[in-house]
Amino acid sequence: MTNCRTVLSGMRPTGPLHIGHLFGALTNWRQLPDRGYRCFYMIADWHALSTEYASPAAIRNNVEEVALDFLAAGLDPGKATIFVQSDVPEHAELHLIFSMLTPVPWLERNPVYKEQVEALQDKDLHTYGFLGYPVLQAADILIYKADCVPIGVDQLPHLELTREIARRFNYFYGPLFPEPEALLTETPKIPGTDNRKMSKSYDNCIYLKDEPEVIHRKITNMFTDPRRIYRADPGHPETCPAFAYHQLFNPSETETIAVSCRAAEIGCTQCKKRLAEKTTSFLAGLRQKRKELENDRELLRKILRAGAETARAVAAETLKQAKKACGMAG
Amino acid sequence: MTNCRTVLSGMRPTGPLHIGHLFGALTNWRQLPDRGYRCFYMIADWHALSTEYASPAAIRNNVEEVALDFLAAGLDPGKATIFVQSDVPEHAELHLIFSMLTPVPWLERNPVYKEQVEALQDKDLHTYGFLGYPVLQAADILIYKADCVPIGVDQLPHLELTREIARRFNYFYGPLFPEPEALLTETPKIPGTDNRKMSKSYDNCIYLKDEPEVIHRKITNMFTDPRRIYRADPGHPETCPAFAYHQLFNPSETETIAVSCRAAEIGCTQCKKRLAEKTTSFLAGLRQKRKELENDRELLRKILRAGAETARAVAAETLKQAKKACGMAG
Repeated sequence: MTNCRTVLSGMRPTGPLHIGHLFGALTNWRQLPDRGYRCFYMIADWHALSTEYASPAAIRNNVEEVALDFLAAGLDPGKATIFVQSDVPEHAELHLIFSMLTPVPWLERNPVYKEQVEALQDKDLHTYGFLGYPVLQAADILIYKADCVPIGVDQLPHLELTREIARRFNYFYGPLFPEPEALLTETPKIPGTDNRKMSKSYDNCIYLKDEPEVIHRKITNMFTDPRRIYRADPGHPETCPAFAYHQLFNPSETETIAVSCRAAEIGCTQCKKRLAEKTTSFLAGLRQKRKELENDRELLRKILRAGAETARAVAAETLKQAKKACGMAG
Repeated sequence: MTNCRTVLSGMRPTGPLHIGHLFGALTNWRQLPDRGYRCFYMIADWHALSTEYASPAAIRNNVEEVALDFLAAGLDPGKATIFVQSDVPEHAELHLIFSMLTPVPWLERNPVYKEQVEALQDKDLHTYGFLGYPVLQAADILIYKADCVPIGVDQLPHLELTREIARRFNYFYGPLFPEPEALLTETPKIPGTDNRKMSKSYDNCIYLKDEPEVIHRKITNMFTDPRRIYRADPGHPETCPAFAYHQLFNPSETETIAVSCRAAEIGCTQCKKRLAEKTTSFLAGLRQKRKELENDRELLRKILRAGAETARAVAAETLKQAKKACGMAG
């Protein structure tokens, strides 16, 4: 282990979280405090506004939905700081300072920016804030002097921009910020129920808050191996999304199921029925915890307020140093 | 008089203020509270950073220099709110919200942006923050719901952007912001001592803080009518920068001087000697007041702290409404 110590990560409150978020991030996030990291987990509502500005009604509700998902998935507010981005105005101030230093070409050549503007064609993302979202990300990370960011390989270009901004600030004003490193984590690929990428906009998600009957219905209707047309055809579990789910929710029976599928001993209906049972029971504890918190909104808000307070204490100190370094009042 | 009531204006602390600032803005600003306006006058240090980011050491000192100039020029902290921009973090938060709404093309086609990037070739202004400075200006103005901005005709494109951003916010989230109007003021053109535009970078300024001997030297060396080569040549006061200064600092003798100059009865040396005397005495009260304040920095800081407090009370209320309107916490 390196001397990486402080971690920042976050999610945008654009909808409830699904099992992709659980296995792709939250399970890892949950473990980091016990591995010695000081963790800041943020509900990034300002980032949500960058794409949802035309219809932001949902953002406010989704903030609490995501907070419920965070806690239900086992993030422990006693071990990690869980907070809402816009409750910590220091992010906006550091973002403004960084904006003065960041060359526009750094942002224009960001491959993720170009992809997103193409991909989300129903939204006009030719906005100043969307162009600059890596500047806000840099502020999010560096306001806590985070030296580790748990990300996937696809997010490396973002982190490189954060590192460049940190270097540029340090070059002009003297060393203040670390150059954060990626905490690359192997996470399983979780397809949507239609075998495409799991995404709210494809309507192919299993949400953490889904009731057992909803999970049963979604799994009953999910895609399976497309080459297995008849019951008697041998299956190919390695390309079947239902099998990918078995590996996560039903690891003890995975081997048996793979063998039976290849031998056409078990049919898809039966296989998915078993999967639905195991998925439902796997998520039972999480769902139970979420229900308890849903019924105690005051506790939820108290947790977020306390998180914001802890985050602000750290952020305010960094901001003070940054403002002083670049000649601002404060 | 319309029902325009709240005014916001500001200056960037990139150096001490000169007589161009005095006659072009401060004299007007001083009168506005007595004409019924609620006035916010800002020392725009974040804006200074947008061009001075590579060498910001001077910004912090210049903040106090500009504050001294404001007060010496007669701005009354009992009648107007005088504050430092970065002491009011709400500007940065509203700027972040506005950034999400502002199309990049609105900024790219800003004629002043293009001019400045060309004009200040010694600085790399291809930065995200410089591209977006009209977004920050919009936040500066609208955080106080200012409905009037005292500007010159050349600044109308900026104000139009502020109006467009206000309209766009109101369109998406319901009416919150006024569309501020220009408070166009006729101000005299004040050339530099070399008859070019008065500008720190041309080293052709008479600063409000200049000592009498400095004023005498600058005026003694200043350009006069270029067509009057010999003492016996008739002068053309209407194109002589020294005569332009007489109109401001020595109005009672202007007529006599114009006649004597045209008749070659008075020489340039004698004319400038008289001008130096009148300029020095015109600025004597201002300089005296500035000296007193220079020696009482604690009072100066107290005034700025009180200004920031007043400004923040208004700004925090607007920000709360804006955040609520667009679905942010707070």
